[in-house]
Amino acid sequence: MTQKIVAVYPGSFDPFTNGHLDLVERGSKIFDKLIVAILLNAEKDPLFTIKERVEMLQAATSHCPNVTVDTFNGLLVDFAVHRQARVILRGLRAISDFEYEMQMSLMNRNLDANLETMFMMPNVDYTFISSRLIREVVALGGNVSGLVPPIVEERLRTKIL
Amino acid sequence: MTQKIVAVYPGSFDPFTNGHLDLVERGSKIFDKLIVAILLNAEKDPLFTIKERVEMLQAATSHCPNVTVDTFNGLLVDFAVHRQARVILRGLRAISDFEYEMQMSLMNRNLDANLETMFMMPNVDYTFISSRLIREVVALGGNVSGLVPPIVEERLRTKIL
Amino acid sequence: MTQKIVAVYPGSFDPFTNGHLDLVERGSKIFDKLIVAILLNAEKDPLFTIKERVEMLQAATSHCPNVTVDTFNGLLVDFAVHRQARVILRGLRAISDFEYEMQMSLMNRNLDANLETMFMMPNVDYTFISSRLIREVVALGGNVSGLVPPIVEERLRTKIL
Amino acid sequence: MTQKIVAVYPGSFDPFTNGHLDLVERGSKIFDKLIVAILLNAEKDPLFTIKERVEMLQAATSHCPNVTVDTFNGLLVDFAVHRQARVILRGLRAISDFEYEMQMSLMNRNLDANLETMFMMPNVDYTFISSRLIREVVALGGNVSGLVPPIVEERLRTKIL
Amino acid sequence: MTQKIVAVYPGSFDPFTNGHLDLVERGSKIFDKLIVAILLNAEKDPLFTIKERVEMLQAATSHCPNVTVDTFNGLLVDFAVHRQARVILRGLRAISDFEYEMQMSLMNRNLDANLETMFMMPNVDYTFISSRLIREVVALGGNVSGLVPPIVEERLRTKIL
Amino acid sequence: MTQKIVAVYPGSFDPFTNGHLDLVERGSKIFDKLIVAILLNAEKDPLFTIKERVEMLQAATSHCPNVTVDTFNGLLVDFAVHRQARVILRGLRAISDFEYEMQMSLMNRNLDANLETMFMMPNVDYTFISSRLIREVVALGGNVSGLVPPIVEERLRTKIL
Repeated sequence: MTQKIVAVYPGSFDPFTNGHLDLVERGSKIFDKLIVAILLNAEKDPLFTIKERVEMLQAATSHCPNVTVDTFNGLLVDFAVHRQARVILRGLRAISDFEYEMQMSLMNRNLDANLETMFMMPNVDYTFISSRLIREVVALGGNVSGLVPPIVEERLRTKIL
Repeated sequence: MTQKIVAVYPGSFDPFTNGHLDLVERGSKIFDKLIVAILLNAEKDPLFTIKERVEMLQAATSHCPNVTVDTFNGLLVDFAVHRQARVILRGLRAISDFEYEMQMSLMNRNLDANLETMFMMPNVDYTFISSRLIREVVALGGNVSGLVPPIVEERLRTKIL
Repeated sequence: MTQKIVAVYPGSFDPFTNGHLDLVERGSKIFDKLIVAILLNAEKDPLFTIKERVEMLQAATSHCPNVTVDTFNGLLVDFAVHRQARVILRGLRAISDFEYEMQMSLMNRNLDANLETMFMMPNVDYTFISSRLIREVVALGGNVSGLVPPIVEERLRTKIL
Repeated sequence: MTQKIVAVYPGSFDPFTNGHLDLVERGSKIFDKLIVAILLNAEKDPLFTIKERVEMLQAATSHCPNVTVDTFNGLLVDFAVHRQARVILRGLRAISDFEYEMQMSLMNRNLDANLETMFMMPNVDYTFISSRLIREVVALGGNVSGLVPPIVEERLRTKIL
Repeated sequence: MTQKIVAVYPGSFDPFTNGHLDLVERGSKIFDKLIVAILLNAEKDPLFTIKERVEMLQAATSHCPNVTVDTFNGLLVDFAVHRQARVILRGLRAISDFEYEMQMSLMNRNLDANLETMFMMPNVDYTFISSRLIREVVALGGNVSGLVPPIVEERLRTKIL
Repeated sequence: MTQKIVAVYPGSFDPFTNGHLDLVERGSKIFDKLIVAILLNAEKDPLFTIKERVEMLQAATSHCPNVTVDTFNGLLVDFAVHRQARVILRGLRAISDFEYEMQMSLMNRNLDANLETMFMMPNVDYTFISSRLIREVVALGGNVSGLVPPIVEERLRTKIL
């Protein structure tokens, strides 16, 4: 049964953090192909444009040959079917993640019974990182070195100045 | 990267429920090989012997060609490495599951950094089923039809009489 | 002590889902009278007007003779006292519900010590449904058949077109 | 629809606490009849015999004319049907309560679809009281005055001496 | 090692509640100095101006000689270092508090490893009070006497009229 | 107000882990004196005797001059009062910790209103470590190097052989 399993890792990634990168690396070792999929128009007032995010994600994941970066609109299940993905990959850090993810996973299963959501845990050192918290700390002048990939850190600096 | 991914689904399975079966079926569609691994000596006063459990699991999963049933002693990570498994598969039903699973997953990652734990959600209809609750209800004369595979239900009946 | 117990089931119901309907049906079997009470001005940008919601709720609950639909402004406890209700009925699906409901229930008890909040669980199949998720899925073109009453599904379709 | 609603409030009550009493008083104001039902053989090494518990519960609830005290063996749903009860009443104090209660409630609904579990919150001052903690504190010589009814406190004192 | 320990208790305090006051009183008995620090610009549409909040906090905490009231902008860790504080004091009421506080505490530890976050529990009677809920209840005409200090209650009344 | 604050850090410490050590080090920087207090007779079948645990704790905390190791029987509040402690120090790792700690903290406040429980978070790298898990992993032949202090690791090795 040497089928190829394609997985989608969806998110806003505004910005992409080391927690996200950690999950991409873990997922890329399990699945034959991993599509990091940026949800268009998710945030009302984004920090980075979609184009900037695609560039940063491509740079930050360039060492993973079976990872590609894409964008999507509309229902995630439609995107997944279109890309022949069988799995939605999600990270779990906290209880509040868990409840939301459970609800979304059940709704997606209701929309497409053949699509499975699989959860992985990021490195425990990244437990406290979220894109929102990164944005807040950077806005207040805090140092996020070690919490985001170097290319994101660099662009965050130019964004703020 | 058409590697074959072997996953281990560990548990006591005393008894194997329809919630477990649901997870086995989901996992068997994603992984090239899925080993359902019964932990030896986990319960002090088991309802079914290991031999009985192996028989029931084999019968209940016989429609999944890439699923095998095995037993293990000692550390799960040692068993997984020995069987060349890259993934530990676990089900998530509730918050209390989540906390315990998170702790175990981090300890296993500490013991073997190359082994990933992946979580899937069983069908929501099986949310309330646990082996312990099945044993309690059966002991009190309750009907568990629809909650366990037919072969388990049948053997539960002879166990009780 | 054949007092008549009136219960209020408050919410925004934008839209009314099968999870809400399930709870109304369960509550109507326990209480002598059940008032489904739509909170006015709860959502800033509602999908359905109050008038539309009243119509849909009346249609969807017309098979329950002891259920009436009403609207309210201001404090829920004032509305309940005015309608001689002794009970506030609420559904519990998830941990996050539980914390919020606990806080509201204690505040309401502080405002009126004679009013009790009682919780029931909807059918497990409706665990993942929330009005917000229904609105999101419909906005993205997803199918919510089976998740909302037929009259709601029909009106959602005309809303979107 | 002036049906009479009978509710069962099950537990071990070893010992009966002021948190339990608070819930009995709240429930007795809503339901036409409330049966406090002591589960036989629940604890391996009980502090009080069933006879002692029945006596203490009857004394502590004697001011509630529609409350009766009873004992039961076997499945709670069978007891409830036998006593023509439509409702199981349970208290909710904490998240861990919630998960266990949810699981039990779903299993009981599976065993008898006509029986509803309803949850109420005890007075927030009793949030931290559990029978187990009362037993532990008393065993270490701590004062539980105000945490249990006077008759229970008195008997606890003679038990320990 | 008779060092003096300075602690910062940060928040929006819009308005300051009896739950906040309870925590200030508890903290002031443990730490040599406690700075209640109002975060500037935290709420988009505040009920009270910063000046009003400083006045009310000073009046409500005037019986605690080692408590001072201050305001801050930017990162909390920078304010704490500037004021030679070693501890951030936070209240814990609920699970959702816990997750958020844990994430913030880890981020702050990442920004300054020498600063410790310490958590205390307010009196259980204040479990259900939050500034947001106070604002909502007051806006709907509800009575919050006993939930906020008298000076806050008085000013809330003039705000509303 | 240069009072000296004594804190008690209670536990079974069977065995003492790096998570415990991390909390002792954090607490010793805040409090004037920190007493690590081993609860006698807490575990039915302990891995290490009380004498062994005292020796290991003393060795592992010898670099903290204001930390002492002691044992206690009976109520923690009585021990704290006897040792003139004002604070009980506890670690928080997970939601399930939080609920139990909250209940204990409220009971202890009921027993002695002057004693405060304060919570700190251990280093996130020790989130998954518990004494029970250490015992299980060691019993199965797993490596716990880096999870417990060197002296504990050494004695664990001789215990097992």
